[in-house]
Amino acid sequence: MKEIQAAKNNKIKELKKLHQRKYRSQSENYLLEGFHLVEEAAKANAKIKEVYLDERGLQLWQEWVERYQLDYYLLSDEAMKALSELPTPQGMIALVQKSDPNLADFSGKWLLLDNVQDPGNVGTIVRTADAAGFDGVFLGKGSADKYSSKVLRSMQGSQFHLPIFSGDIKETIPEFKKMGSNVYGTKLDQAALSYTQVEKTPSFALILGNEGQGMTEEILQMTDQNLYIPIYGAAESLNVGVAAGILMYALI
Amino acid sequence: MKEIQAAKNNKIKELKKLHQRKYRSQSENYLLEGFHLVEEAAKANAKIKEVYLDERGLQLWQEWVERYQLDYYLLSDEAMKALSELPTPQGMIALVQKSDPNLADFSGKWLLLDNVQDPGNVGTIVRTADAAGFDGVFLGKGSADKYSSKVLRSMQGSQFHLPIFSGDIKETIPEFKKMGSNVYGTKLDQAALSYTQVEKTPSFALILGNEGQGMTEEILQMTDQNLYIPIYGAAESLNVGVAAGILMYALI
Repeated sequence: MKEIQAAKNNKIKELKKLHQRKYRSQSENYLLEGFHLVEEAAKANAKIKEVYLDERGLQLWQEWVERYQLDYYLLSDEAMKALSELPTPQGMIALVQKSDPNLADFSGKWLLLDNVQDPGNVGTIVRTADAAGFDGVFLGKGSADKYSSKVLRSMQGSQFHLPIFSGDIKETIPEFKKMGSNVYGTKLDQAALSYTQVEKTPSFALILGNEGQGMTEEILQMTDQNLYIPIYGAAESLNVGVAAGILMYALI
Repeated sequence: MKEIQAAKNNKIKELKKLHQRKYRSQSENYLLEGFHLVEEAAKANAKIKEVYLDERGLQLWQEWVERYQLDYYLLSDEAMKALSELPTPQGMIALVQKSDPNLADFSGKWLLLDNVQDPGNVGTIVRTADAAGFDGVFLGKGSADKYSSKVLRSMQGSQFHLPIFSGDIKETIPEFKKMGSNVYGTKLDQAALSYTQVEKTPSFALILGNEGQGMTEEILQMTDQNLYIPIYGAAESLNVGVAAGILMYALI
């Protein structure tokens, strides 16, 4: 165990860079905050490189950390506050090696996000896809980064339960079609088909779009069918995380 | 039009008290931020008592404000920043008179929230209930306050489309039963009935519970039937807003 006292310690400064997407994208690691999430990582055999604990965290989890033979640091409250992205730090932060899936098998049920920007929405949708037994999630251009702390918090560990790819949806749609999967877009437009009228199939890709603008027009043109959720009241639209949940559970 | 320059102006100080639930509960008014929400209030004939604009807001909406014959103030950027609850103020804040529904007709489709604490969840659920054509929402003990700015933002004006009551769910369940409505609880427990097996009825009350703990045990005992959403993957649970959306759209 090593100790870090100063909030301006060089190691803390280096680690804090991982809060920014541009640094994170160049790094092979990311930060995961809170015991529950770190525990999920350990259970999933993710490579946990180092763990940072404050005094309270040390009391609670030293035994756990040693059982997993993890390298760990004791941080002063000040240093922990500097490293944490939360108003109230959770006592444990881990440096975890990214594990991006590289071999894609696009069969089964997939959820694709076209420019879904809010990290809470992206995380909640991944969690719902996990709950609904989906086979994977694909984050298209403009979508929040799966290694951002807000996405990680909202996913509640679901990134360890199903593969999450990032890339260009336009390039991946033909892959789904090759597998014989139906590709469903979503559109707030009654010219589309109500989701209640879709026949269930074991293999499909469902695409959700941006919070304000919906899906990119170009991608809407590439789908087999575009779906909508009927609005019976006076609301203009549904939250994208809620819409994704209604559609995923209706299609499985 | 009057002008307010100083962030520490007495009027601003008084208005800012409405950010706190305890002051708000004693007041007959609440604050609504952003043109879109204020416009919804005006369309719904809510009583808008005063409007506060910054320089940019004045340019954009002075004509609108005068058309509705609203009293308005021009705030310095500093004063607007002091009054706003957002990191980036939206240029318009309105003081609106509360309108709590008092005559309850509990027929039709109702959503009840038992100790749902997160304001974003409460707001999103009300918006979904609006979209799904529900007849009303009932906020039970421990639930976020419908006049808090985060709830108001997440509702996106749905509070003007359906009645929102606050009170004790235990006391209101018998009212629903008297109307012949089924009262459905929700429980993360396969001893409950899968929501896919419920027959649709025109009149029912659906209760969602707290983010971490679920529904109060006492209230679970009072329902006609408790429902669950099957988890097919490895996620432990669903976000309560997502669960509410899946259930509401499945039951209507």
